[in-house]
Amino acid sequence: MKIDTIFLLGAMALGMGPSAFGDPLPSWNDTASKKAIVAFVEKVTTPGSPEYVDPAERIATFDNDGCLWSEQPMYFQAFYILDRIKTLAPQHPEWKDKEPFSSVLKGDLKSALAGGEKALLEMAMATHAGLTDEEFRNVVGDWLATAKHPKTGMAYNAMVFQPMLELLAYLRAEGFKTFIVSGGGIDFLRVFAEKTYGIPPEQVVGSSIKAGYEVRNGKPVIVKLPEMNFIDDKEGKPVGIHQHIGRRPIFAAGNSDGDFQMLEWTTAGEGARFGLLVHHDDGDREFAYDRESHIGKLDRGLDEGPDRGWTIVSMKADWKSIYPDNAKP
Amino acid sequence: MKIDTIFLLGAMALGMGPSAFGDPLPSWNDTASKKAIVAFVEKVTTPGSPEYVDPAERIATFDNDGCLWSEQPMYFQAFYILDRIKTLAPQHPEWKDKEPFSSVLKGDLKSALAGGEKALLEMAMATHAGLTDEEFRNVVGDWLATAKHPKTGMAYNAMVFQPMLELLAYLRAEGFKTFIVSGGGIDFLRVFAEKTYGIPPEQVVGSSIKAGYEVRNGKPVIVKLPEMNFIDDKEGKPVGIHQHIGRRPIFAAGNSDGDFQMLEWTTAGEGARFGLLVHHDDGDREFAYDRESHIGKLDRGLDEGPDRGWTIVSMKADWKSIYPDNAKP
Repeated sequence: MKIDTIFLLGAMALGMGPSAFGDPLPSWNDTASKKAIVAFVEKVTTPGSPEYVDPAERIATFDNDGCLWSEQPMYFQAFYILDRIKTLAPQHPEWKDKEPFSSVLKGDLKSALAGGEKALLEMAMATHAGLTDEEFRNVVGDWLATAKHPKTGMAYNAMVFQPMLELLAYLRAEGFKTFIVSGGGIDFLRVFAEKTYGIPPEQVVGSSIKAGYEVRNGKPVIVKLPEMNFIDDKEGKPVGIHQHIGRRPIFAAGNSDGDFQMLEWTTAGEGARFGLLVHHDDGDREFAYDRESHIGKLDRGLDEGPDRGWTIVSMKADWKSIYPDNAKP
Repeated sequence: MKIDTIFLLGAMALGMGPSAFGDPLPSWNDTASKKAIVAFVEKVTTPGSPEYVDPAERIATFDNDGCLWSEQPMYFQAFYILDRIKTLAPQHPEWKDKEPFSSVLKGDLKSALAGGEKALLEMAMATHAGLTDEEFRNVVGDWLATAKHPKTGMAYNAMVFQPMLELLAYLRAEGFKTFIVSGGGIDFLRVFAEKTYGIPPEQVVGSSIKAGYEVRNGKPVIVKLPEMNFIDDKEGKPVGIHQHIGRRPIFAAGNSDGDFQMLEWTTAGEGARFGLLVHHDDGDREFAYDRESHIGKLDRGLDEGPDRGWTIVSMKADWKSIYPDNAKP
């Protein structure tokens, strides 16, 4: 146990939150968004407050793509899938004449992705299934360690939002349990979520394919199967939260209309609730997109969010920095 | 924060486990089973031990029926289902002529259950689906508060095993995260698991039916649907662990061959591992059954468990008491 942990435990024993030691959100400007977050956390964690929430019920859920890390020009998991198709192509001569694989191999991403979600799903299945969980973890880990984002040249898991890392840590220090609830693949996320976000595998909810258990030469393995299990997006998010977490969050953060139902479900509960939408309005430091975007479309959320009491975070106005200082290539 | 928690935190800061303050397993006799458990916990939690395990990896999974509470003469959830069929019968006149419902309504349980798992599943679906998650929680909670076990006259959730409650608390005090991994219904378990076992909803893995999300008169609800989602039994247990927890346990406890694969998966991992099977050999204080039982059959586990290094716990020899002292009716 480190000295600062002992200090923190001592401070907790005295009933002081970590915020007593300084600004818990140093990368957030002192605007209305930050004030709303801090006010919410204080009222649900202060004993005796009329809106006090028992620590067991302090569940916070975060979307990943576009909320905790960037998602342009396409979902980072899609880059993984495309790279993986190229790697596996020699073992799949039939892909040369089969869409969407042939377009990927010709470097024609636009045609490859023209089939929309269905094409992406087909490619995800072809590149995820058949591996044991251990093999999959290694393949994704190797990819993350070497692949670079086409625009920034940064590692994908370095393109995480510093203000959101601070928010996750702040909530945890105040007794919240933080979860990812993502449309992305649950096992893909689990490869880096613990190290990158401090979120352990058991607190990751995501889309998944089915899995099987078998004993191969005396060694038990979990194998990923080519069959869809669950799509954790839109109406799927409250369902995934129900199945996986089993209670309603009091805090939910997202950035697109795929998160609408998660925020709706969260903020419809009784007592104090917090809904947060990250608005990508900073084309200089990140990417600017919302109502018309093919990825991370935010339209209904911008229209209805403010009336529902949700906080719309402007990356441009509310955030001092985007990526961690040490993330630059 | 209570004084004893502050004391415990202080003790943890000094590197002392709670066992320093007395016997963590007072309801266990001082036999080989208890010694094996304590030796395992000490070697994986003692810093510097060659088999030390990082707290994040200290995952312990427990079966529920027959492992944390009794399961005879039939699964307690089956009693719930039968009671619920009787309650709902006036709204379902068609059940009078439809098996297995008609046998239930005639009080002929043997015929009702003759259809095996399929019949039980059909009844589970008919009595679980259609409710919102909130309605289901209330209905099960009301049932638990009033229903009595036919033999003991005790409330069902009082028929929990005191030695296992101590084991759960001991592991948690030593930095383990404890999970239920049950063939029973995940939402049924969640109604009482937190209060009864100290296991929060998000750490319950079980069988499930599908769920949907809808907005009814402006109010969002989760509705349980009449379609099977996942059966968390036998090979399903390692799969459920994979999907829900995302890492392999280092400790697993069960009592039947339905837990075989969970223990196999757990103990096949590298490093120190612990597999535990509760053997129901105490007909005086509980129920005696194993190889031939229609519920909780334990056959392969008895044959292969010892060679695999699993600890077979004799309820008769290893446990000083069965149910908590204050559980008597």
